[in-house]
Amino acid sequence: MKPQKAPSDAIPRAVAARLSHYLRCLEELERQGVTTTSSRQLGKALGVTAAQVRKDLGYFGQFGFPGLGYKIVQLIPEIRRILGTDKLWRVGLVGVGSLGTALLRYKGFSNHGFRITAAFDSNPELAGTQVSGVSVHSITDLERVFASEGLELGIISVPAEAAQEVADLLVAAGAKGVFNFAPRRIVLPTSVPDVSVDLSVELERLSFLVSSLAAVMKEGGE
Amino acid sequence: MKPQKAPSDAIPRAVAARLSHYLRCLEELERQGVTTTSSRQLGKALGVTAAQVRKDLGYFGQFGFPGLGYKIVQLIPEIRRILGTDKLWRVGLVGVGSLGTALLRYKGFSNHGFRITAAFDSNPELAGTQVSGVSVHSITDLERVFASEGLELGIISVPAEAAQEVADLLVAAGAKGVFNFAPRRIVLPTSVPDVSVDLSVELERLSFLVSSLAAVMKEGGE
Repeated sequence: MKPQKAPSDAIPRAVAARLSHYLRCLEELERQGVTTTSSRQLGKALGVTAAQVRKDLGYFGQFGFPGLGYKIVQLIPEIRRILGTDKLWRVGLVGVGSLGTALLRYKGFSNHGFRITAAFDSNPELAGTQVSGVSVHSITDLERVFASEGLELGIISVPAEAAQEVADLLVAAGAKGVFNFAPRRIVLPTSVPDVSVDLSVELERLSFLVSSLAAVMKEGGE
Repeated sequence: MKPQKAPSDAIPRAVAARLSHYLRCLEELERQGVTTTSSRQLGKALGVTAAQVRKDLGYFGQFGFPGLGYKIVQLIPEIRRILGTDKLWRVGLVGVGSLGTALLRYKGFSNHGFRITAAFDSNPELAGTQVSGVSVHSITDLERVFASEGLELGIISVPAEAAQEVADLLVAAGAKGVFNFAPRRIVLPTSVPDVSVDLSVELERLSFLVSSLAAVMKEGGE
């Protein structure tokens, strides 16, 4: 029998996000001592229908028992396996500025199976230092350290204008995937997926929403 | 004549994101000493058509001169005004844990007009301390400090299970908008917009993409 794992481009992006939310929900139920749940309960927690939950999980195989629901202790490792967080990812971070330092200090990565084991910067004065217990190397050592430490993923936290150059270096060093926190789109080969988090865009979206709403309410009051 | 500012829900979410990207692009052109640009040039930088750029900017009024393009020195403040980043937002951060501390240290907020001037935590031992020059208050003082310091926006960086409670406290304290960094959806009145950044979902999306791709390539090689 073929494994049920489906190619990433066949699965809508929203499904992966919902799987994360199902997992958060299941982990919390487990902490509360709950042992089984249903697609209805999971759907309710996420604001989707029970049918949507069954369809989402159905992409990856047959889980749960009709009429009995899901055994939480079984479903959690299944979803972790699907999301690829059942293993430890070794990560190299490039750009030890304000954002990079914040990311090195943030424990959320290791809580999700991402261990940042090396950092890189173009500033020669930073090479040899440690930030949050992680050694900082010269950017010129990227390829060597990626190979010697078996790094698989890269984090880009450099200024916008350096983002693509660093992306190219990471691909050349053999990175299998890239987190891009720089406020600039990067282009990678299709064999190297990337996830971009542009905080400046998110910040401006909130000020935009608040400002527009204030303008509308002012007009309404005239 | 009525102002051209449109209600937030009439403008597609993607437009606000593209406005941020136009702004980044214009700021960089200005740094390079360029004084005018065109919808074609802006579109090319973002991977959209010139018509899309004109349509996006068209939501907010008439900018630029047919055949001459946009004067960068004029367009930058216009987009900042539309995005609401032409003013300084006073922000209170709730939850001084690993993520909250990282956010307090991250300079990206102030670069975009968001000044975090107060932090709050439920741990009484943190009250009275300072993190990155920001005073930490007891969560019980939230409403009082929001009023006395004229805070307008709130950042939620507490664990998932406390997110909704903190959201309610921020609304009661008069927050006009909320950034939610907790890995949990929150529900707010429609008069208080929120922008959520769930880093755990983004992290799991990358491991999912890399894992699925690896599985597909392995199958292809069998």
